[in-house]
Amino acid sequence: MTVTSTQVQLAARPVGDPKHSDFKITTVELPPVGSDEMLCRIIYQSLDPYMRGRMDDTKSYAAPVQIGDVMGAGTVAEVVESKNAQFRPGDIITGMFGWQTHVISNGVGIRKIDPALAPISTAIGILGMPGMTAYVGLLDIGEPKKGETVVVAAASGAVGSAVGQIAKIKGCRVIGVAGAAEKCTFVTEELGFDACLSHHSGNLDAELAALCPDGIDVYFENVGGKVFDAVFPLINPFARIPICGLISRYSHIGGFPGPNELPKLMRSILTNRLKIQGFIITERWSRFPDFEKDVSGWIQSGALKYREDFVDGLENAPEAFMGLLKGKNFGKLVVRVSDDPTA
Amino acid sequence: MTVTSTQVQLAARPVGDPKHSDFKITTVELPPVGSDEMLCRIIYQSLDPYMRGRMDDTKSYAAPVQIGDVMGAGTVAEVVESKNAQFRPGDIITGMFGWQTHVISNGVGIRKIDPALAPISTAIGILGMPGMTAYVGLLDIGEPKKGETVVVAAASGAVGSAVGQIAKIKGCRVIGVAGAAEKCTFVTEELGFDACLSHHSGNLDAELAALCPDGIDVYFENVGGKVFDAVFPLINPFARIPICGLISRYSHIGGFPGPNELPKLMRSILTNRLKIQGFIITERWSRFPDFEKDVSGWIQSGALKYREDFVDGLENAPEAFMGLLKGKNFGKLVVRVSDDPTA
Repeated sequence: MTVTSTQVQLAARPVGDPKHSDFKITTVELPPVGSDEMLCRIIYQSLDPYMRGRMDDTKSYAAPVQIGDVMGAGTVAEVVESKNAQFRPGDIITGMFGWQTHVISNGVGIRKIDPALAPISTAIGILGMPGMTAYVGLLDIGEPKKGETVVVAAASGAVGSAVGQIAKIKGCRVIGVAGAAEKCTFVTEELGFDACLSHHSGNLDAELAALCPDGIDVYFENVGGKVFDAVFPLINPFARIPICGLISRYSHIGGFPGPNELPKLMRSILTNRLKIQGFIITERWSRFPDFEKDVSGWIQSGALKYREDFVDGLENAPEAFMGLLKGKNFGKLVVRVSDDPTA
Repeated sequence: MTVTSTQVQLAARPVGDPKHSDFKITTVELPPVGSDEMLCRIIYQSLDPYMRGRMDDTKSYAAPVQIGDVMGAGTVAEVVESKNAQFRPGDIITGMFGWQTHVISNGVGIRKIDPALAPISTAIGILGMPGMTAYVGLLDIGEPKKGETVVVAAASGAVGSAVGQIAKIKGCRVIGVAGAAEKCTFVTEELGFDACLSHHSGNLDAELAALCPDGIDVYFENVGGKVFDAVFPLINPFARIPICGLISRYSHIGGFPGPNELPKLMRSILTNRLKIQGFIITERWSRFPDFEKDVSGWIQSGALKYREDFVDGLENAPEAFMGLLKGKNFGKLVVRVSDDPTA
């Protein structure tokens, strides 16, 4: 029997915002399952802001996707057929299978997940890369202390929503910044942040200053641009700024007009003894056991909530991804590629 | 007997570069030595770039010097008369006595020094604040690893010269940046740096790139401006940038013309997972015992050399300080305020 996989490939490198013609949806025939290999059917596929960077041909932490390659992504899949001793048909697994419906895998870098622990989609969300980005970035780099003020951008998103709730668990005062009013309401009423501002308000600087009378001790940066500009004048001595993303800048074309703000930042780093540190979660995987234990415990106790935003069908992934970069998603964006047998 | 102290006071806040009229040299009568107090004669007074910042009335890590106050400085002094049980006449001590010839002290924050250990002037140099800034900033924040490339600005100065030599002791490849040609020669031939470039060359970017074929892993920042600009494109993934000073910017007036380089820096922090951290050595004093043990050992073994640049007479301190900000000193700048009884 021949198995085909529908794939979303990179057709062209985006200039600025990605558009439909930058993606190509095509169907390829998969080879037979070889020795030690397995055929996997993808159930859920993650869409994350970092993917925008990988569409560019610039030096970054990960090699760029090549034109004609399948777009990369974390996925949850079911093993359909297996010649690999470690996996059996019916196993639910997670791995970086990309934007496609089926794949042949040799099992390297693949992890079995337990459907009894939580809905399997969370393996690419709150119990996967985004949740761990929040956990490690906030705790290991942000080092929040009880009573401190923590500001979180993209507060209703996959990472930001977890950052703010973990900061609350650690006894901090937490201010979120999000877009739409319904997101801000969700962040305060459902997730329990102390306050949430909209970056559409036109008055973010003054509003944030009013909400942070004691300054800001931790700013979890995943946006860049005007949220950082509003945070910067309020930053406290010894503040920590973990940087895991800069979504507002990913599709920016060209330079940035003056004045040059870099000398002001350097002066503040010195006089305020700031720590600003970038990190990539895949390089901190040793923290996974602590992360999984803590976060699954918090989910079970109700201390930590998560919201997923499902899109049906691989063919809708490009449109959903373009929306993600504009903040149109509401919660962790997940493509439902095929039926979830555990749901 | 009435004792007088000649003092250098802050007469006016400098606009840009300090000038003579920003300082006032005057003589005041000291009160009698009270209970638990002692009269001290200052022998050596430190001149350091950070003092420029304290002349401004802007928010910083230390309160600004007020108009009419004595300029602050680390000093080495001799106890002349004592009603404090912990100090006796003839004791050599170090403390923040400022730009003056005599002072009444209650002994708080004062440390006795052992003239047998090293020349007493080193207590405000290689065995004092500048040496410890180098040691702690490089080792605790810079975290140099054997075989890595370390770049040090102001390489012949009090801090930079120690940073580079400690990095060599730790097995790194060390490139210095200095001004005058004789300083560059000193840095390579006397201190053993692998190379030293002049920031006057007009071609610093290309020269530094040629000397760092494997990129830069640690940049010890104490200058800012064009040295940072040359380092930035060469920075490696996981590089560390401790910031203890920004001398090139201290007297800058107004803003900085565009383009805005801040977004580019933020992107590099993310994609290269950089750590950029400011620090003030007085807040890391717990490291003093390790520092004193290691650095005095390295001095005794000949692994670490230091150079002092003496200026005679308190009345010449303002001129010497202005020169320091222009890089006219050669080594740790010290004012010889009065005779050294141990020399």
